[in-house]
Amino acid sequence: MWVSLFGALLCCGVMFVINWWAALITYAIELFLYIYVTYKKPEVNWGSSTQALYFVNALDSALALTTVEDHVKNFRPQCLALTGAPMVRPALLDITHAFTKNNGLCICCEVYTGPRKLCVKEMNSGMEKKQAWLTKNKRKAFYAAVAADSFRDGVKSLLQASGLGRMKPNTLVIGFKKDWRSAPATQVENYVGIIHDAFDFELGVIIIRISQGFDISQVLQVQGMCFPSIWLPRATYCLTYQTSFHIFFFLITESTINTIQSMHVGEFNQRLLEASTQFKKKQGKGTIDIWWLFDDGGLTILIPYILTIRKKWKNCKLRIFTGGKVNRIEEEKLVMASLLSKFRIKFADINIICDINIKPNKESWKFFEEMIEPYRLHESCKDMPTAEKLKRETPWKITDAELEAFKEKSYRQVRLNELLQEHSRAANLIVLSLPVARKGAVSDYLYMAWLEILSKNLPPVLMVRGNHKNVLTFYS
Amino acid sequence: MWVSLFGALLCCGVMFVINWWAALITYAIELFLYIYVTYKKPEVNWGSSTQALYFVNALDSALALTTVEDHVKNFRPQCLALTGAPMVRPALLDITHAFTKNNGLCICCEVYTGPRKLCVKEMNSGMEKKQAWLTKNKRKAFYAAVAADSFRDGVKSLLQASGLGRMKPNTLVIGFKKDWRSAPATQVENYVGIIHDAFDFELGVIIIRISQGFDISQVLQVQGMCFPSIWLPRATYCLTYQTSFHIFFFLITESTINTIQSMHVGEFNQRLLEASTQFKKKQGKGTIDIWWLFDDGGLTILIPYILTIRKKWKNCKLRIFTGGKVNRIEEEKLVMASLLSKFRIKFADINIICDINIKPNKESWKFFEEMIEPYRLHESCKDMPTAEKLKRETPWKITDAELEAFKEKSYRQVRLNELLQEHSRAANLIVLSLPVARKGAVSDYLYMAWLEILSKNLPPVLMVRGNHKNVLTFYS
Repeated sequence: MWVSLFGALLCCGVMFVINWWAALITYAIELFLYIYVTYKKPEVNWGSSTQALYFVNALDSALALTTVEDHVKNFRPQCLALTGAPMVRPALLDITHAFTKNNGLCICCEVYTGPRKLCVKEMNSGMEKKQAWLTKNKRKAFYAAVAADSFRDGVKSLLQASGLGRMKPNTLVIGFKKDWRSAPATQVENYVGIIHDAFDFELGVIIIRISQGFDISQVLQVQGMCFPSIWLPRATYCLTYQTSFHIFFFLITESTINTIQSMHVGEFNQRLLEASTQFKKKQGKGTIDIWWLFDDGGLTILIPYILTIRKKWKNCKLRIFTGGKVNRIEEEKLVMASLLSKFRIKFADINIICDINIKPNKESWKFFEEMIEPYRLHESCKDMPTAEKLKRETPWKITDAELEAFKEKSYRQVRLNELLQEHSRAANLIVLSLPVARKGAVSDYLYMAWLEILSKNLPPVLMVRGNHKNVLTFYS
Repeated sequence: MWVSLFGALLCCGVMFVINWWAALITYAIELFLYIYVTYKKPEVNWGSSTQALYFVNALDSALALTTVEDHVKNFRPQCLALTGAPMVRPALLDITHAFTKNNGLCICCEVYTGPRKLCVKEMNSGMEKKQAWLTKNKRKAFYAAVAADSFRDGVKSLLQASGLGRMKPNTLVIGFKKDWRSAPATQVENYVGIIHDAFDFELGVIIIRISQGFDISQVLQVQGMCFPSIWLPRATYCLTYQTSFHIFFFLITESTINTIQSMHVGEFNQRLLEASTQFKKKQGKGTIDIWWLFDDGGLTILIPYILTIRKKWKNCKLRIFTGGKVNRIEEEKLVMASLLSKFRIKFADINIICDINIKPNKESWKFFEEMIEPYRLHESCKDMPTAEKLKRETPWKITDAELEAFKEKSYRQVRLNELLQEHSRAANLIVLSLPVARKGAVSDYLYMAWLEILSKNLPPVLMVRGNHKNVLTFYS
């Protein structure tokens, strides 16, 4: 390299020796061309060797990483976030980005279902645009998409195959399915199936719920209608998000007639949009409440801890809630405090909750029973053959036997929500151990009902469950 | 950083000022400890921050790569090689590594099929060992594995979801299925299905055939039997490679009785082992023959060109064979020569073959007909209902109508093999355009028969087909 530089400088010198005024003119022309190109900045992709070097660099460092041994201290949340197109669920991306930025991995995933040829074409054409959106919005995340026969199949592919070497997901981040009560049974089955798949493939799971929901595709489409210039690039979502497409049609056909209704929709969209930017803003003074109810390796503690070291969340203090016996409150507090200080995690307060396992009050329970009523089979009121037939036809429905067997667990979720309302109503964020259901034993709708009742009427909730891999350590 | 260093040095100085002999003793002890640790080299994984930095580095450079725009000049073969466990098909890995090393991506893939719980456990436990094997053998490749219901499903996941950002596969590398005639029909269906899937997902395909086959798992298992010390780590393959497992059982039960047979097996294994190392050695003086029969974007030319710039293959010269009309041989030669020199690809010779499209000689054709005989339906000799029924029951069989419709194409493959025997029998490597079959139109067995007859009795053959993306350019 240095020899080349020396040679080049020598040549420049020799130019002047041979004919000084010709050399001067040459330099003047060169300088003019250089300034011209710099000033005009023509948008040309030269396919330069610098670009090739980026590839070699990325490859080499990914290969170097494979030689590094795993260590609990170097655990990082490497998240697979089911955002769909990243602009459609910005809040989900924001919160995931908050705990993966700079030291973790974030992959925004989209699954295309439908005829393969069409899907692949749509997918490949959108790939670059969506990655560019992430870069433009300063999200350090990758975009990945697959075409599959069903949503669950697609996610299964992503859970297993995405990532390169060590940079592969260890945690699934998914928004809470708000419309589980009105959605078709197959959608609910897929949703719960994905959670089971993630556990099977030894990933942790984080389900995030905000009261307004994450999906703002309808707002994007309305915006697209108002500003036709940005309508075109967004038309691609229509195929995938057909539900929102219908709403969109409803908007242009109905709203002109019924202005009151359209105003309602506008207001609703406004609130949706506000909710979608809530994690972009700096969080006010407050608390992040951690309800650490099971030991899952520490992910439930690690995620909020990482949040508190971010600029946006630094005004939030950690409060820990955990179960305990009424006669040993002080002892358990001390044990927990020493454990956390060993983990070098700063906390503002520890609360030992003794009355988790008591029965919930009647009203809450009645509410829960009413909620699951449409999904119950009530097989005990029917004769055997009809019951058997019903069970076979609608395996996703809640049987009486199942409800009886998991009564304690249902009580617990309802009771937990009461406690959450009592203690954490004003928190900025709640991080909560996610209840798990054995595959096959608990029907999909009962599980969704648990999640629903657990996280109802609360500030943003993160339901977290690690895969029993330790992610925290005493050793420094 | 410099301030810290200055502070540290200052402290050392102050130590001496305060109490010079105590400082000296301290240094002596420190030095002793340092030498002790360096000498003993305890195998401890400290989970150091250096290791964490590797991760951040890899992530940052992968993210930086996503901002780079695609350009034909920066096309690199990024291969998904279906090697199974990388030690089982070393020759397939070697040849792939030869054209991906340092400037392309190579992912060694394995698919586990069977009960999910078991598969995932086996998969995750083998993951690190297999990546370590790659590192130890200086293969710049990643290992990836998935558990799926069927082999094809697993490969589908890998084709779509593997890789991160820009570092994702664009070419599928797969060994030729040697045992297609004896294997169950579902296996053949899966194999051909994978090739179709790859084209659907817009990847290129490279099928590699060496006369001995790639899979040396039986040799590994026999070795494992002789040297019990290395038997244990290899026991994990048994589950996956059940066919070889049977052979292994056959070896320990039968070979003790029938020594002649076991000697045959030993000889066979020896040859298999030799074949498996053929791409590890430096290639002798000779040629790489490129039969460029379709324009697929240039992958068929690019792969052998990359090989010739490697040390091991630098003694091999490129010879180009392509079709043409008998009255324009010299013209077409000139056109091709100027095209290749524009691509800056050095070649030793160009041959224009005029008699590709004539009928093959009778013997070769008879051989082909005999080969496909067991897979033919012969529906025209039967009455309509039986024929229809047979067609429904065995959709993978070759119908008379199909054979008639694709007679020209079958002729062509047989004729091509004749030409290959004539011109390229002595080449070090043959690179050949892969014939493609429209999905549904050509039955799986007819397609396999084409590949079989095309690449029969030849030196190692690479059948290549790009995805019609240009990979070569005039512009420098």
